[in-house]
Amino acid sequence: MSVTLTRLQTATKSTARVFTPLCKGTIHHQGVDLHSSLRRPYSSFRKLTSLPLTKWFPRSVSTRLMSYGINVTSGGYRKGVFLVTGVATVAGLAVGVCHFQRAEMASRIVLPEKDEGDILERCKSFMCSPITDVHVLQERKDEMSTRMEMLILETQAAFCKALEQVDGGSFKVDRWQRKEGGGGISCVLQDSKVFEKAGVNVSVVYGNLPEEAAKQMRSRGKVLKAKDGKLPFCAMGVSSVIHPKNPHIPTVHFNYRYFEIEEADGTKQWWFGGGTDLTPMYLNQEDAVHFHSTLKEACDKHHPQYYSDFKKWCDRYFFINHRNERRGIGGIFFDDLDSPNQEEVFAFVKSCARSVVPCYLPIVRKHVNDSFSPEEKAWQQLRRGRYVEFNLVYDRGTKFGLATPGSRIESILMSLPLTARWEYMHEPVKGTKEAELMEVLRQPKDWI
Amino acid sequence: MSVTLTRLQTATKSTARVFTPLCKGTIHHQGVDLHSSLRRPYSSFRKLTSLPLTKWFPRSVSTRLMSYGINVTSGGYRKGVFLVTGVATVAGLAVGVCHFQRAEMASRIVLPEKDEGDILERCKSFMCSPITDVHVLQERKDEMSTRMEMLILETQAAFCKALEQVDGGSFKVDRWQRKEGGGGISCVLQDSKVFEKAGVNVSVVYGNLPEEAAKQMRSRGKVLKAKDGKLPFCAMGVSSVIHPKNPHIPTVHFNYRYFEIEEADGTKQWWFGGGTDLTPMYLNQEDAVHFHSTLKEACDKHHPQYYSDFKKWCDRYFFINHRNERRGIGGIFFDDLDSPNQEEVFAFVKSCARSVVPCYLPIVRKHVNDSFSPEEKAWQQLRRGRYVEFNLVYDRGTKFGLATPGSRIESILMSLPLTARWEYMHEPVKGTKEAELMEVLRQPKDWI
Repeated sequence: MSVTLTRLQTATKSTARVFTPLCKGTIHHQGVDLHSSLRRPYSSFRKLTSLPLTKWFPRSVSTRLMSYGINVTSGGYRKGVFLVTGVATVAGLAVGVCHFQRAEMASRIVLPEKDEGDILERCKSFMCSPITDVHVLQERKDEMSTRMEMLILETQAAFCKALEQVDGGSFKVDRWQRKEGGGGISCVLQDSKVFEKAGVNVSVVYGNLPEEAAKQMRSRGKVLKAKDGKLPFCAMGVSSVIHPKNPHIPTVHFNYRYFEIEEADGTKQWWFGGGTDLTPMYLNQEDAVHFHSTLKEACDKHHPQYYSDFKKWCDRYFFINHRNERRGIGGIFFDDLDSPNQEEVFAFVKSCARSVVPCYLPIVRKHVNDSFSPEEKAWQQLRRGRYVEFNLVYDRGTKFGLATPGSRIESILMSLPLTARWEYMHEPVKGTKEAELMEVLRQPKDWI
Repeated sequence: MSVTLTRLQTATKSTARVFTPLCKGTIHHQGVDLHSSLRRPYSSFRKLTSLPLTKWFPRSVSTRLMSYGINVTSGGYRKGVFLVTGVATVAGLAVGVCHFQRAEMASRIVLPEKDEGDILERCKSFMCSPITDVHVLQERKDEMSTRMEMLILETQAAFCKALEQVDGGSFKVDRWQRKEGGGGISCVLQDSKVFEKAGVNVSVVYGNLPEEAAKQMRSRGKVLKAKDGKLPFCAMGVSSVIHPKNPHIPTVHFNYRYFEIEEADGTKQWWFGGGTDLTPMYLNQEDAVHFHSTLKEACDKHHPQYYSDFKKWCDRYFFINHRNERRGIGGIFFDDLDSPNQEEVFAFVKSCARSVVPCYLPIVRKHVNDSFSPEEKAWQQLRRGRYVEFNLVYDRGTKFGLATPGSRIESILMSLPLTARWEYMHEPVKGTKEAELMEVLRQPKDWI
């Protein structure tokens, strides 16, 4: 494995006590979806024992509307819980669905269930030493920022290793620092046997909230009590896009992130965001059901409405407006999640992050030896073009990253495919496999 | 030549008197750079016999600053003419430069000098019948909207024919209509012998200024006197992007446009915009000098400061901020040009439009048989990726088009290359031809 900075030097060295990375790399800004993280939570959730249909009340951001067909007036923050009859069945609905398929496809690589245990020991499995000094992590091992940093590094390592196992190649590991505080680890596998481009990025950034970001939060109705004009924050996340060579293996994307902001009186505002979504070039019903069922299973452990709501949110978010089509067949997407409490939301995010490998790897293995024609490869390239369009025109994280001075552009744009194609006036012939995909991209389906 | 709707049916048929296209095609929005056109003129220009260094005073738009290193307070419109000594020489400066090279490279295809003559006769040379009914054009032959429509159609035809001559292939011609008024003609040559993708688009759109656009103009300090809340407008332009296959032939882009708006008392606000710029994958000094000299020659006929100012504007506009590099080696770019008078600005725009073929075709012919390696082709693909980044992230026309409901997306995105590539952390080795290009993209040069 090519490692720009020594891997696994984690456990032994330490140069600073607080938030100082071990390795000196290029000083860069973060690659985390800071944009999403910088927005304050607008959605709220209260778990009731009667398993109600919970509503996340959106503000005036249309892409974030949960699809209940309800008009909600914009502005301010509102929390609401609607009691709807017959929802108790939701939790049990999808458990039996596709059980056979999923059992058949079950991944051999699963993350350990615990997130406890010795920090030093856990660090040994990472792609590179943590961003935060390992002694600081040990001292603050019960803090959410530590637990999340460990989770994202664990997720990065587990996913990279699973991909290396199926590909045979090794990820290039770049560790980079952010001048203002924090840094990241970018792992990229490019033009390899199975993968055209596979990027798995972790970043942990901290410092004082930039004035522009603070203003943005005030404009969203959030009164932040700054101390001497300063608002210390910490944002971290793991994000990944995998573009395989074979057009029968879909592209996958996931991102899980955490944001924390400290007010003058020492109280902390915090929230989580994230999601996992699939972009096939050819529709495979079994794959789609497996992918969504695995996500649903992760969601259902935490709330019966999570999957249904976050699936709809995902379909709305990954929409290429100018093409009137979705980027792929969705998955889940959520942001600003801060209730019922930190422990429960973290448990949910942990379940999601740990579902990434079982969501995707069985699909990769299933199709890795599929044969394909030059025409199928050309179609994949056209769909890659659409992926580029979404990421450069709509994706909030990418847009925010590109507009932020000092961003690590290579980490932000590692989501772009190695190759893409644009043909003038290309339209698949009716009745073909290509047209079948387009139908689903234009009209999202319920897979389970 | 493949023609979706019969070419050259122009001269004989007529179905309506006013602004009604002859052919019934798909009803679509425009592909013109309406965004630029919708902004009111901020720059002003007064030609003095003493050949002063004229200043176009910018408003608060940084990309539009003319580079005199002068801080100008934002807001409002101001016209200014600074008298600077020793500028009388500017006009004669570049005339002798590269005369030999340009004489050697001189194009065999040149547009006729006249823009007068019989409308029907001139229409015969177009790629398709004009957007506006030919009888309307005849009746209003002295109006600027007619003269500009004839010019853009002539430019489209001359450029397409010149490219066909060198390529051997034929453009696909699509004529389309805009529901709200007007339409366009999109000519595309794809995956042909010399050109990977060549698109030349004309659009003529009219109707009443949408409320959003009118608001935008008011916010720019423009008080538009609407009649019954209506502001009739007309916007038209020709735009083109040519991506050749051979990495030694540069990509070219040009766009010339005209905007007209009618106020309640019948007076018309109008302005022109446009530019031509070159994006080589490998720097060729001789090509760069030829390209810029040809543009300078077109500019110098009209004002000694035009080339210098519009060259700087071009370097500023085609800047990929997140990469800290320009898209190419520039050319000229201007917008909102409305003085000294309509006749003189039109004459300037005509000179520019007619310089497109002599700017580019000699370069194509010179390199059409150059051999190239797979590595040179791969480098071209990476530069194509940057072209996509500029067009999707920064180009105002593209962004406006994608955000406008009902836009003809295929005409807007025909500027994207057939193929592009993104490699993680790619950096040319020092001393190579690739690194030489990057230097010029990071630090623009004066070519003449």
